Amino acid sequence: MKNYKMVVSYDGSRYKGWQRLGKGELTIQDTLEQTIEIVLKYKVEVQGSGRTDSGVHANGQVVSMKLPFALKEDFLSKVNEILPEDIRLRGVEMADGKFHARYSAKAKTYKYYVDSKERPSVFLRKYVFHYPEKLDVDAMRGAADYLLGTHDFTSFTNDKSEEKDKVRNIYRIQIEEQDGMIVFTYYGDGFLQHMIRILTGTLLEVGKGEKNPEDIIQILEIKERSKAGFMVPAKGLFLDKVEY
Amino acid sequence: MKNYKMVVSYDGSRYKGWQRLGKGELTIQDTLEQTIEIVLKYKVEVQGSGRTDSGVHANGQVVSMKLPFALKEDFLSKVNEILPEDIRLRGVEMADGKFHARYSAKAKTYKYYVDSKERPSVFLRKYVFHYPEKLDVDAMRGAADYLLGTHDFTSFTNDKSEEKDKVRNIYRIQIEEQDGMIVFTYYGDGFLQHMIRILTGTLLEVGKGEKNPEDIIQILEIKERSKAGFMVPAKGLFLDKVEY
Repeated sequence: MKNYKMVVSYDGSRYKGWQRLGKGELTIQDTLEQTIEIVLKYKVEVQGSGRTDSGVHANGQVVSMKLPFALKEDFLSKVNEILPEDIRLRGVEMADGKFHARYSAKAKTYKYYVDSKERPSVFLRKYVFHYPEKLDVDAMRGAADYLLGTHDFTSFTNDKSEEKDKVRNIYRIQIEEQDGMIVFTYYGDGFLQHMIRILTGTLLEVGKGEKNPEDIIQILEIKERSKAGFMVPAKGLFLDKVEY
Repeated sequence: MKNYKMVVSYDGSRYKGWQRLGKGELTIQDTLEQTIEIVLKYKVEVQGSGRTDSGVHANGQVVSMKLPFALKEDFLSKVNEILPEDIRLRGVEMADGKFHARYSAKAKTYKYYVDSKERPSVFLRKYVFHYPEKLDVDAMRGAADYLLGTHDFTSFTNDKSEEKDKVRNIYRIQIEEQDGMIVFTYYGDGFLQHMIRILTGTLLEVGKGEKNPEDIIQILEIKERSKAGFMVPAKGLFLDKVEY
């Protein structure tokens, strides 16, 4: 078998997330598999580095695919011809036989975009969460520092998550502000369902003064979703990069 | 009568341009007028600084409106609450009684965005023309120089244009390139229908080597649409600013 690693970008606005759901729900995995099937005249299954939720975007989702034959040189351009314009295949390369987009992933970077200006940009409205509040960026950075390292993130994930191991390691959180646009960058070994969105909502509550930076310590300890902040909408979230 | 000057941004993707057309066609002027009518409970007519074509966007379209009464302070926020999210009212101010968005305009700036990279960005696809060609930016700048000043732009407008006076004055054309993204900025006293899009298509043909910079001299002289280059699509065009 040949093993391939692909990089995919998508505008998640129209999709019910990455993962195949069946029942006629439109997902990115389905769309990509069906397109590849048309090009190769062969039924494939692709593995994403992780699920992205309904409405979440990706610059660099990584996908693996096993095939009993080698791809031809025009595979990438043929796939892009057929894919809808909100999904693009950015790269394809041969991978080691043991490579798996999900299980081999070492680190992921996510970005979350917040527009804190009073009036939102019409052009960014599908990719940015409009949150017109005065935000104390230094307080948010202070709070973010308490999140770094290895913690049990039970308070920062979906209550109904079936994942048993809620321990993750966040290597870095960067918060940049320019002209009212705030970009949160999260770099870690992996993230639980809704984790980035609840982390961001909690940091925004700190920025607004509703929570103190030190509150993070207790929220982590208590392991209750209700103690963390609100969950920001999917549309501001981008899976930026996956490292192996 | 009170006279008001408003600044409006819009994502033109869904609209049949600025100008009211009747026949149930969705335009930005209609949408804005209907929204203002709901807020003021008074039927208004607004004047734009110029028509933007179907699919063209605006950062700063300027609009004037006469009223027999003064606007209240919450007018702007109420209008934005009702407007669809792809149109935003950015500002409202009282204007001199003689002010008219179209007739008082002294200069306009338009921007046109071209993505010359092989693979287009999924996130910019509605706002950028994807033209994956090797482009000689210096040759395009050389060609642009011949367009500066006062000329009869008959070769660079819609054949069917009813405008009699085809003479316009272009003060400046700027062409910037970064990582394959090319931004054309046109600054002039006014532009004919399709003029920016045909100018840009012609400059791209120079960039690609299909035309020489000096060909512009003859194209201007001959006054025939067919001698100029192709017309680039509406989606890359932005009315950026109007000066008075």
